[in-house]
Amino acid sequence: MDSLNKLIEHFREFPGIGPRQARRFAYFLLNKNPAYLEELSRLVTDIQKTIRICSSCYRFYSVRSGVHEVRFAATAGTGANTNLCPICLDPSRERNLLMIVAHDVDFEAIEKSGSYRGLYFILGGTVPFLEKNPETRIRLRELGMLLQGRSVSEVILSLNANPEGEHTARIVKAFVTELPLKEPVRTTILGRGLSTGSELEYSDADTIMYALKNRS
Amino acid sequence: MDSLNKLIEHFREFPGIGPRQARRFAYFLLNKNPAYLEELSRLVTDIQKTIRICSSCYRFYSVRSGVHEVRFAATAGTGANTNLCPICLDPSRERNLLMIVAHDVDFEAIEKSGSYRGLYFILGGTVPFLEKNPETRIRLRELGMLLQGRSVSEVILSLNANPEGEHTARIVKAFVTELPLKEPVRTTILGRGLSTGSELEYSDADTIMYALKNRS
Amino acid sequence: MDSLNKLIEHFREFPGIGPRQARRFAYFLLNKNPAYLEELSRLVTDIQKTIRICSSCYRFYSVRSGVHEVRFAATAGTGANTNLCPICLDPSRERNLLMIVAHDVDFEAIEKSGSYRGLYFILGGTVPFLEKNPETRIRLRELGMLLQGRSVSEVILSLNANPEGEHTARIVKAFVTELPLKEPVRTTILGRGLSTGSELEYSDADTIMYALKNRS
Amino acid sequence: MDSLNKLIEHFREFPGIGPRQARRFAYFLLNKNPAYLEELSRLVTDIQKTIRICSSCYRFYSVRSGVHEVRFAATAGTGANTNLCPICLDPSRERNLLMIVAHDVDFEAIEKSGSYRGLYFILGGTVPFLEKNPETRIRLRELGMLLQGRSVSEVILSLNANPEGEHTARIVKAFVTELPLKEPVRTTILGRGLSTGSELEYSDADTIMYALKNRS
Repeated sequence: MDSLNKLIEHFREFPGIGPRQARRFAYFLLNKNPAYLEELSRLVTDIQKTIRICSSCYRFYSVRSGVHEVRFAATAGTGANTNLCPICLDPSRERNLLMIVAHDVDFEAIEKSGSYRGLYFILGGTVPFLEKNPETRIRLRELGMLLQGRSVSEVILSLNANPEGEHTARIVKAFVTELPLKEPVRTTILGRGLSTGSELEYSDADTIMYALKNRS
Repeated sequence: MDSLNKLIEHFREFPGIGPRQARRFAYFLLNKNPAYLEELSRLVTDIQKTIRICSSCYRFYSVRSGVHEVRFAATAGTGANTNLCPICLDPSRERNLLMIVAHDVDFEAIEKSGSYRGLYFILGGTVPFLEKNPETRIRLRELGMLLQGRSVSEVILSLNANPEGEHTARIVKAFVTELPLKEPVRTTILGRGLSTGSELEYSDADTIMYALKNRS
Repeated sequence: MDSLNKLIEHFREFPGIGPRQARRFAYFLLNKNPAYLEELSRLVTDIQKTIRICSSCYRFYSVRSGVHEVRFAATAGTGANTNLCPICLDPSRERNLLMIVAHDVDFEAIEKSGSYRGLYFILGGTVPFLEKNPETRIRLRELGMLLQGRSVSEVILSLNANPEGEHTARIVKAFVTELPLKEPVRTTILGRGLSTGSELEYSDADTIMYALKNRS
Repeated sequence: MDSLNKLIEHFREFPGIGPRQARRFAYFLLNKNPAYLEELSRLVTDIQKTIRICSSCYRFYSVRSGVHEVRFAATAGTGANTNLCPICLDPSRERNLLMIVAHDVDFEAIEKSGSYRGLYFILGGTVPFLEKNPETRIRLRELGMLLQGRSVSEVILSLNANPEGEHTARIVKAFVTELPLKEPVRTTILGRGLSTGSELEYSDADTIMYALKNRS
């Protein structure tokens, strides 16, 4: 296979990209100036070096300047934690609230909404029905260690309102409930109801039931 | 214009029907047996005779047998109300709850959900922004008379979660609040949050804020 | 079932109409003035009386004034044909060209294009694969009688460029070829190529092959 | 801006990619193994080195082995043409046929159809209406030089069957007609008609007119 088709094959692995668009990407690059290609190439190799996974919440974050973190960590008296993301290091966040999300994109949606000031935990996925070993799909063990080592009063399950999301929420809730913790932790689930733009005529029975229950 | 095209013109007035589908409808009828046409024709002329508007909730309902209603009404000691729909006449509904909806289809969605056991009131529409006289668009006057003549403890505003629905809800809420009523009435709005199928990644800030507020 | 739901059931039989839109239609009629309903009802019952099937081309046509036809027919010396449509009666059409289409809507598309001045024949359908008796699906017998009683030099097969259309075209072509006719008739098929709006990038091999063959 | 967001910005320039999908791409790469990233990075930088533009037809082609080409070129007695693509070098192609296409993807669609055995010329774009200087949009000058230096009997214009494609075809046709050539060249346009899947009911007047003209 020549290098054009090899590149197309690589693009085909990108999420949501079919053969035709993969080919378009390759032709697009053929027509870009070399400086763009050089930088794109460098960013691709460097991405895993400049992005780390937070050792507490497991989200990806950029390492801008090591100094900044070390200083923060020192302030917090936890000099060893050089792999903590800015949110986990931020002293203004409410540390007794822990929101569980499936993916980094969910974290971003919540954070962008500006309605939440606690900490996060990225599960890294959801659990399909029939999966016997959920801990191979989501970070249950890591969640357990985190909850046992920290004082959390509420775990908020923020998963998609679809069957797999609800299935995953039940699994995480059962796991948290059975953890041997010094202090009991409350687990809550995001409220259901009419989402922005919902029309009653097209709403299902569950949404209407929750909307009625959560009326105010 | 010949009668085929006249029929097509009539179908073009149907909601959501363009010229091509209107023509399809006409050819469909040309190929149906005469008995179907006779019954469809009869149903069309009779619809307004066999369907009445409830004088209390203003929804459309079928007049199946005059006897049934009269008996019920007599039982309830309101012999004059011969134009009440089965729900308004049903003694098992909670009469202190009144749900306000825009259209009959919204009433049907709620009723089909099985989550609500109170009474209804059909506004007959919504109020566009910039409309100076909302009472020309929705049944405000009729709502006022109903609330003044009956003991209602809660008015539930069930409008679409879009700008025009929210605008209409504010108008109805202000109207109810200013009504001179013997007993105060509480007005509530359907709860917001994640509707069935909502994904966090695609949810807007308002939906996330409400989902957090309504977590449980 | 009450009359509202009976009407909705009737609308659900309309082509392309689901339960929700059928219900919308019923509410739409509930809100129309009685004059509209009366006329719609009358048009529905009358449609099969004012529309006839042409005894030559089998398309539907409106009977506007019986006089017109009779006169025309008399002029043509075929006094018995009182069921001929205006196009079959039009002396300016080329009578040696016969275009075969599946449905009345196809006839209308061709006629609206203004590119054809011959006569038509409506097959009344297409033949699904695996159908053993095509004559139960399309008017083969009627086509045979027409071709045997009239001098036609070319039969143009105007069927959709999809598998069922092509299958039907092959059946009609074989049928015409084997008819015992006094004079041989040529059968042609509509040309293939790029249709308006076609983009090469998304065109299949057949379309490109025909477009190359028909280049000019 | 950190390197994650820089990478996202680069992906946003990709054709058809919005902010959300650009972000998905970045997270996708964060989760891939380093070997994939290394190879993707290398392919991106190398693409313009391993892909050349053919100096005759102007399409992109992979340089697999320089030896192959040189040998071929030597055989053809044109030792200087080290930048000819395999198709332009292929002695089995009909050299008197030249097909003009807008983009490489169009060339690929034609080539994949297997219906064409001549040579190609990539215009590099189309000409928008109102563009005063078409030669700044498409390779008119290069086409002129090619036609003056080679014996071509037919130029086939293979452009999209939409207004801009037809406009471009007219411009190229006029340009070719006015070229001072030793021998006259015939210019043809891809045939119009029903493309695969076309339904008569939804076909416009032009498509029907061409389909009738090209019937066979």
